[in-house]
Amino acid sequence: MTAAPTTPPLPRRLVAELTGSALLAAVVIGSGIMATSLTTDVGVQLLINAVATAFGLTVLILVFGPVGGAHFNPAVTLAIAATRGLDWRDAPAYITAQIAGCATGAVLANLMFAEPAISVSTTDRVASNTLVAEVVAAAGLVLVILALVRSQRLALVAPAVGAYIGSAYFFTASTSFANPAITIGRMLSDTFAGIAPTSAPGFIAAQLVGAALGLTLAVLLYPRRVDVIEEPRSEAGAGSDTGSASTPAAVEPGVRAAPPR
Amino acid sequence: MTAAPTTPPLPRRLVAELTGSALLAAVVIGSGIMATSLTTDVGVQLLINAVATAFGLTVLILVFGPVGGAHFNPAVTLAIAATRGLDWRDAPAYITAQIAGCATGAVLANLMFAEPAISVSTTDRVASNTLVAEVVAAAGLVLVILALVRSQRLALVAPAVGAYIGSAYFFTASTSFANPAITIGRMLSDTFAGIAPTSAPGFIAAQLVGAALGLTLAVLLYPRRVDVIEEPRSEAGAGSDTGSASTPAAVEPGVRAAPPR
Amino acid sequence: MTAAPTTPPLPRRLVAELTGSALLAAVVIGSGIMATSLTTDVGVQLLINAVATAFGLTVLILVFGPVGGAHFNPAVTLAIAATRGLDWRDAPAYITAQIAGCATGAVLANLMFAEPAISVSTTDRVASNTLVAEVVAAAGLVLVILALVRSQRLALVAPAVGAYIGSAYFFTASTSFANPAITIGRMLSDTFAGIAPTSAPGFIAAQLVGAALGLTLAVLLYPRRVDVIEEPRSEAGAGSDTGSASTPAAVEPGVRAAPPR
Amino acid sequence: MTAAPTTPPLPRRLVAELTGSALLAAVVIGSGIMATSLTTDVGVQLLINAVATAFGLTVLILVFGPVGGAHFNPAVTLAIAATRGLDWRDAPAYITAQIAGCATGAVLANLMFAEPAISVSTTDRVASNTLVAEVVAAAGLVLVILALVRSQRLALVAPAVGAYIGSAYFFTASTSFANPAITIGRMLSDTFAGIAPTSAPGFIAAQLVGAALGLTLAVLLYPRRVDVIEEPRSEAGAGSDTGSASTPAAVEPGVRAAPPR
Repeated sequence: MTAAPTTPPLPRRLVAELTGSALLAAVVIGSGIMATSLTTDVGVQLLINAVATAFGLTVLILVFGPVGGAHFNPAVTLAIAATRGLDWRDAPAYITAQIAGCATGAVLANLMFAEPAISVSTTDRVASNTLVAEVVAAAGLVLVILALVRSQRLALVAPAVGAYIGSAYFFTASTSFANPAITIGRMLSDTFAGIAPTSAPGFIAAQLVGAALGLTLAVLLYPRRVDVIEEPRSEAGAGSDTGSASTPAAVEPGVRAAPPR
Repeated sequence: MTAAPTTPPLPRRLVAELTGSALLAAVVIGSGIMATSLTTDVGVQLLINAVATAFGLTVLILVFGPVGGAHFNPAVTLAIAATRGLDWRDAPAYITAQIAGCATGAVLANLMFAEPAISVSTTDRVASNTLVAEVVAAAGLVLVILALVRSQRLALVAPAVGAYIGSAYFFTASTSFANPAITIGRMLSDTFAGIAPTSAPGFIAAQLVGAALGLTLAVLLYPRRVDVIEEPRSEAGAGSDTGSASTPAAVEPGVRAAPPR
Repeated sequence: MTAAPTTPPLPRRLVAELTGSALLAAVVIGSGIMATSLTTDVGVQLLINAVATAFGLTVLILVFGPVGGAHFNPAVTLAIAATRGLDWRDAPAYITAQIAGCATGAVLANLMFAEPAISVSTTDRVASNTLVAEVVAAAGLVLVILALVRSQRLALVAPAVGAYIGSAYFFTASTSFANPAITIGRMLSDTFAGIAPTSAPGFIAAQLVGAALGLTLAVLLYPRRVDVIEEPRSEAGAGSDTGSASTPAAVEPGVRAAPPR
Repeated sequence: MTAAPTTPPLPRRLVAELTGSALLAAVVIGSGIMATSLTTDVGVQLLINAVATAFGLTVLILVFGPVGGAHFNPAVTLAIAATRGLDWRDAPAYITAQIAGCATGAVLANLMFAEPAISVSTTDRVASNTLVAEVVAAAGLVLVILALVRSQRLALVAPAVGAYIGSAYFFTASTSFANPAITIGRMLSDTFAGIAPTSAPGFIAAQLVGAALGLTLAVLLYPRRVDVIEEPRSEAGAGSDTGSASTPAAVEPGVRAAPPR
């Protein structure tokens, strides 16, 4: 009754990745500039930055996800390609679009706030503890995405990633960059959210290590590709006429065998 | 088993647009007045204004959406009419109701806070960077709405628009008016959220340019009218008995052909 | 395949109303006391109070809603009885449980924060503008609930009511009591959220006027009892096999005839 | 068409409990350290701590729930075992994993913020009112979880628990530890979220009393194991073709008999 799903053509997906990445960088950098213009309380500044990013990122994933996947992040693209969610041959173009997008978004944020179009950040952020924090931040991000994808809960990716980043702004000492493309974009704005170019390589390396760690953990926890898990089963039990005889016991977790693919 | 959907009669839809627009203006202007009465930290003030608007706007779309569409915004009405979601002949009445509603809501907010019923704002907001910001703000708003509509995710419009505006308060230098009707309403309150009449034409022109940009981008990303995308497919796979043989690969995006219309 | 729904026995519903009302009062009053103990910035104080109430109220409706309806509010009980959602004969017991619950919750909050079990509030809150604000606050609350109920979106009542109150804390000059039972409970705590007994009658009268206004507006917008609206239709189109030939045009609103009852 | 659900093997579930508990402790303790490093306003500090925990906990339950149940909390494990949602024989391993995880997470947070790996907290938190608060906090937590589980709304557990804790940070005088494992973990960080070892036994005892109270209340309100309640029914009525003749009256609550198990 419904036709088979088809993947949009690559150029359209790249437009989505580029535009989405640009808007993500504009949200992160722009709300940082706004925050410092409004208050001198750094707690309130980072709260503004985090709330704007959490809300904005959720919306961007909703808008661009169905077109290009809404990775906006080379570490995520690599992890998804590694789990066969993206053709490896498309990865270089995705990553190029993400970096170009984040750089464009940094310029857009600068212009919206009457800053020079490009100003190289002088904020040194590398320390042993912030690098540990970036490993944790990226591992968590990749784990969240892959856990939801591998358990067929795609509709939850957008709010969960937004909430995760909103939280990680505070529980990681690095304020959770967790994204090589946006790390590059943030080099181009000497404002609240900026990062000095000398700090970028360390951050990016830590993010890639974290992504590998998150990927490993996700595969360990969800070894099979297509599990169907408690939440949808609950809805199925209430809203469908399957009359399932296999209602699970309370919250004791369960998985079903993957449907034939 | 279910009857065909019918559109409510135009007068009822206009009551919904007028009432909803009035309440939206009351939320935006009222929470701004409240914020300045509570604290001198402008960061906290705008956080209060943004949180109240994000929550309030989401609820207003839930309440009035099924009746009149919950546009509350001439730029949105024009974009929806342009994509055949509203009969062009209804657009002038919609826009009139929105402007009348926002003006009424401004008066209501003023009265709730013991201000004069009408006080013309003296806050000049026009600058080249704030006009760029309004283009971005309105483009993003129209893009969010049309992307969700064109991918059949109407249930997500309310929370996504609320979250978008909550974020855009901070990532745009103009605090994201993004709405000609509320720009007019805000002229009538010389308080935190106000805008001087001399600044209104520039803001409105920027908003209309932004709406056209958002419309273009939405059609580029979602060229067909009725795509069915990853999120509903995921739910369908879990909660229905379609036993779909076309389970999509991870987050690699897919679209289905539109059902016959 | 599934048995007919049955209403829980009245005593169990009253336990739910009493317990839920008590916890609601504890959340509102307790978070107010906490807020004033933490900071002198009144903006931050009310933000804490509002966030705690919005989150807490949403959860309480989820927990108690399936048992007793989660009214927690005589104005809501009256509006629901007026639209035949509750037997009028049960209304007095509901209202009694709500008032007893809110009084109990006030005592609980006082004790949790090492205040005297009961201290009569001395905060005078009545003014012409705060009474107008209470009319608006209660009208909005009743409208939100009835609009969702009458359009068969019961699952949205909990988050929508939480978000509404979170917003109304700020856009009404009265911080949105909107509930006669909690107005009575708040008299018993001379802290941030308290209200002097002399102010209570005016607030309660305004709330009842507001409830009547909200009821009127809801019936005007949703004249028929069981409309099925855009959001569920969208989900149905994606997640069911109805193969609906009546896919609605974009966001142009539509209603279906009520199913036979 | 779908295979019967199976519970993942115990070792994998324990990895999930351990990892999830570690990340939860890292979120709670880490965001507390971050908060105190950013601002001197204690209201803003606790707001940051609460927002980070609410968002983070929701995401952790989404990620780990389908694998191990996402208890992260001995009090929750006991309550779930008592309602036959977990085999009693698995409870000791669960609790051990939770405690080990929370201790590990405390160390991780300390390291991410360049603190000594372990520093024993000196924050005395016991008082008669904070013990009452912990009883309330844990009772509420267990009630929220069991009410949703017993009414077959498993998909709501993650956001509801996140929202509950976000609220309880403020409406309980103890900032709602509500978890014996994290109470032990918090002993290992002499920072914002820490608790002196001398205060831990009292807190843990109060939490266990609270869990018993919450369990009692949940069974009182939801006496049968598998109720199906208003929200799913509402969705079923709109989105399925069951053509239910038993549409419930408005928000008057109802339950269906449990399906055969």
